[in-house]
Amino acid sequence: MTNDGAIILFTIAYIFVQILLDSLKRCRARRQRWNVRASEMSKNTLNPIRAIVDGMKLTPNPEKPMIALSIGDPTVFGNLPTDDSVLQAMKDAIDSHKFNGYAPSVGYLQSREAVANFYSQAGAPLEAKDVILTSGCSQAIELAISALCNPGDNILVPCPGFSLYKTLAVSVGVQVKFYNLLPEKSWEVDLQHLESLIDDRTTCLIVNNPSNPCGSVFTKEHLRNILAVASRHCIPILADEIYGDMVFPSCEFHSLANLSSDVPILSCGGLAKRWLVPGWRMGWILIHDRNNIFGSEIREALVKLSQRILGACTVVQGALESILNNTQAEFYQSTIGFLKSNSEICFAELSTVPGLNPVMPSGAMYLMVGIEMEHFPEFQNDVDFTERLVTEQSVFCLPATAFEYPNFFRIVVTVPEEMMVEACGRIREFCARHYRPLSQESNDLDQ
Amino acid sequence: MTNDGAIILFTIAYIFVQILLDSLKRCRARRQRWNVRASEMSKNTLNPIRAIVDGMKLTPNPEKPMIALSIGDPTVFGNLPTDDSVLQAMKDAIDSHKFNGYAPSVGYLQSREAVANFYSQAGAPLEAKDVILTSGCSQAIELAISALCNPGDNILVPCPGFSLYKTLAVSVGVQVKFYNLLPEKSWEVDLQHLESLIDDRTTCLIVNNPSNPCGSVFTKEHLRNILAVASRHCIPILADEIYGDMVFPSCEFHSLANLSSDVPILSCGGLAKRWLVPGWRMGWILIHDRNNIFGSEIREALVKLSQRILGACTVVQGALESILNNTQAEFYQSTIGFLKSNSEICFAELSTVPGLNPVMPSGAMYLMVGIEMEHFPEFQNDVDFTERLVTEQSVFCLPATAFEYPNFFRIVVTVPEEMMVEACGRIREFCARHYRPLSQESNDLDQ
Ligand SMILES: Cc1ncc(COP(=O)(O)O)c(C=O)c1O
Ligand SMILES: Cc1ncc(COP(=O)(O)O)c(C=O)c1O
Repeated sequence: MTNDGAIILFTIAYIFVQILLDSLKRCRARRQRWNVRASEMSKNTLNPIRAIVDGMKLTPNPEKPMIALSIGDPTVFGNLPTDDSVLQAMKDAIDSHKFNGYAPSVGYLQSREAVANFYSQAGAPLEAKDVILTSGCSQAIELAISALCNPGDNILVPCPGFSLYKTLAVSVGVQVKFYNLLPEKSWEVDLQHLESLIDDRTTCLIVNNPSNPCGSVFTKEHLRNILAVASRHCIPILADEIYGDMVFPSCEFHSLANLSSDVPILSCGGLAKRWLVPGWRMGWILIHDRNNIFGSEIREALVKLSQRILGACTVVQGALESILNNTQAEFYQSTIGFLKSNSEICFAELSTVPGLNPVMPSGAMYLMVGIEMEHFPEFQNDVDFTERLVTEQSVFCLPATAFEYPNFFRIVVTVPEEMMVEACGRIREFCARHYRPLSQESNDLDQ
Repeated sequence: MTNDGAIILFTIAYIFVQILLDSLKRCRARRQRWNVRASEMSKNTLNPIRAIVDGMKLTPNPEKPMIALSIGDPTVFGNLPTDDSVLQAMKDAIDSHKFNGYAPSVGYLQSREAVANFYSQAGAPLEAKDVILTSGCSQAIELAISALCNPGDNILVPCPGFSLYKTLAVSVGVQVKFYNLLPEKSWEVDLQHLESLIDDRTTCLIVNNPSNPCGSVFTKEHLRNILAVASRHCIPILADEIYGDMVFPSCEFHSLANLSSDVPILSCGGLAKRWLVPGWRMGWILIHDRNNIFGSEIREALVKLSQRILGACTVVQGALESILNNTQAEFYQSTIGFLKSNSEICFAELSTVPGLNPVMPSGAMYLMVGIEMEHFPEFQNDVDFTERLVTEQSVFCLPATAFEYPNFFRIVVTVPEEMMVEACGRIREFCARHYRPLSQESNDLDQ
């Protein structure tokens, strides 16, 4: 045998023994030492907002008090309290002693009936059996996705859009395809792009109207166009209407279900935004079937899934009927009036700032601002831009990269008016300082 | 070419065309017609109690008012109200106007701290960071299983045991292995059987103490023996201690974590049972790590999973500190006194009924009764037996097949005393009517 041959043989034998030892080690590992690993699902549960914000260096300028325009919680500044009648309904529910035991997993019949009556429309009638109460709109979305999608399926999600859709879908192995919204068309859906994404594993189209983060409100016509796409390809819709009815007086909110003749829709909503109590975790799914397409199968799937952890707190469920029926119109109007006025202040201010392109919202609680990045060569992107805005001006806006939409940032318009004015002034100062006109030289350099 | 050859060729061609047509059909199916199917997960979400109860013919005897000893909800009869101080804590939380916004997904720091202080022990100290607030103990169990287990793993679950463990595990593709509890040893774990089930994909041992459905309370020594098994095989424990401290004065509750030196434990609990408010959906996970085995990995997994739908209602969270600190000892004692007295009544009555073998509980709210099926030849099993008990005597007990444990039934001991007495009398009448002694003849027939 040659030397070479011996070496090769020895190497093979060596590798072989290593493999044996390795598998022996692995086989015993479980038994002989502790090795507790987090599940794949937990590793696949990603929170883009946290991932981005945690990665930012947010050190405010000590000379200026911090103003956070980033928090999607209307209650933090105390200027938008819920209605007294809403709080009274809760106290009455407690005093009744009737709402401490287990409710059915889909909610009390009477509370479901109250929601059905509140949201029933001529084109989209609802009964108690069509309503499932959930722990916030988040659980409504979770149940809807879990009922409709298998691992390997895909869902269509707006971009920019609320990040929870992706978080929930990816964590259960469902793929996410983003369809574009068009800022130049008041954030309407790019219908061609939407349609181009559909394939034979597309099991759900998510439509969020009014929109977080855009504050846009779709026209009846546009909603009909979206429905036409879903209808052509036979895709059911998850309509996230948590901001339903939160639209400025100049325009109107149309629920998608009321316009649908053949597309079955799960409409998700809750008390969080319109009644200004997001912590109470009261949400719902409204099942709008059409031609029995969902049929008993999807209804039963939702009921079964609701039994995994049960839904909303019974005290809030007990108060629900009174909350829906006894909250005065003035309460809603005053919230909307405030949001509109604050949006106008913010929009008017920022639209005269060179380098920024705010998009005027029509509802919800948000306003998106485009950054002409070419005019801010110091910053790489929206994350950079908003980070420095904190360092220099102590104003924090969420970079829209958190909504998969770079080079924009989102402003929450629920802050007190004087804070909004002050924040806009500081943003103007910040931009003035960093704005660079596209000079002849830079053009030369480009060539 | 022979005739045979032609036939073979033709057959092949025919099959080929069929396959082509079939796949064409399937490919277009999605696009041309509606076909919305429920997900596999929803189909795999099974509720054994519902499956069994819905399959039973429950037509009470019209001459006798119905008595349900089946409902694990202590509030249904009004005889076990929660404490006034608990209700007051809720109203104070509402009046404070401080608890309407979003809480962190793991709960308010102050509320977590209150839970940590309440449950901290010398052998198992807790800080706020070790507490995750959840929407009921059910969500606590869901998060714990989802954090520890991947599809294909298996968990060890008590038999008889609370059915939710299996429901949650199977729905996410985790296999369930049942370990036996021994009625003749006050429902202690069959440790040999438990140990024999462990393999290299066992990622969690669930221990439920005090037990639903057994009402058993483990001794310190027995808990140590369970820990020894977990320790030998390096399996973390999910301790479902929702009935913690709900034990009769004659015995003592030991939390598993306080006895563990090396086994890391997720202890799940909540307000539901001890504070008699199951509808409020307030639960928690207490993270008892040991030697950093869970480490940051499992903690982060739990935090991430908590962000999927957010947890408990903020009003209840806001009331939590006061509920834990201001509920008087008399309240707990009076509940336990009642449960013990009712258990004794039930046990004393049924232990003199020929053909029944009740097992005296030491805590929780349940009592299991063995049926000597050989003495009731008319009935096939516990489901049959309890169904007929409704038809004839209008008394409903849950057949223990619902807990994977045939030939027993479970009695909930929270009903008012006079109901308990009346129900036991009717059960005695029922058994007397159907009892058949094992006569010589039947022995002859057996041979
Ligand atoms: C578009 C959208 N959908 C759903 C939710 C979640 O609502 P909830 O707090 O009721 O879970 C939010 C919250 O910000 C949202 O913006
Ligand atoms: C053993 C056990 N664990 C957990 C739970 C669920 O508790 P919760 O209502 O807080 O979700 C129950 C409820 O009956 C139970 O018996």
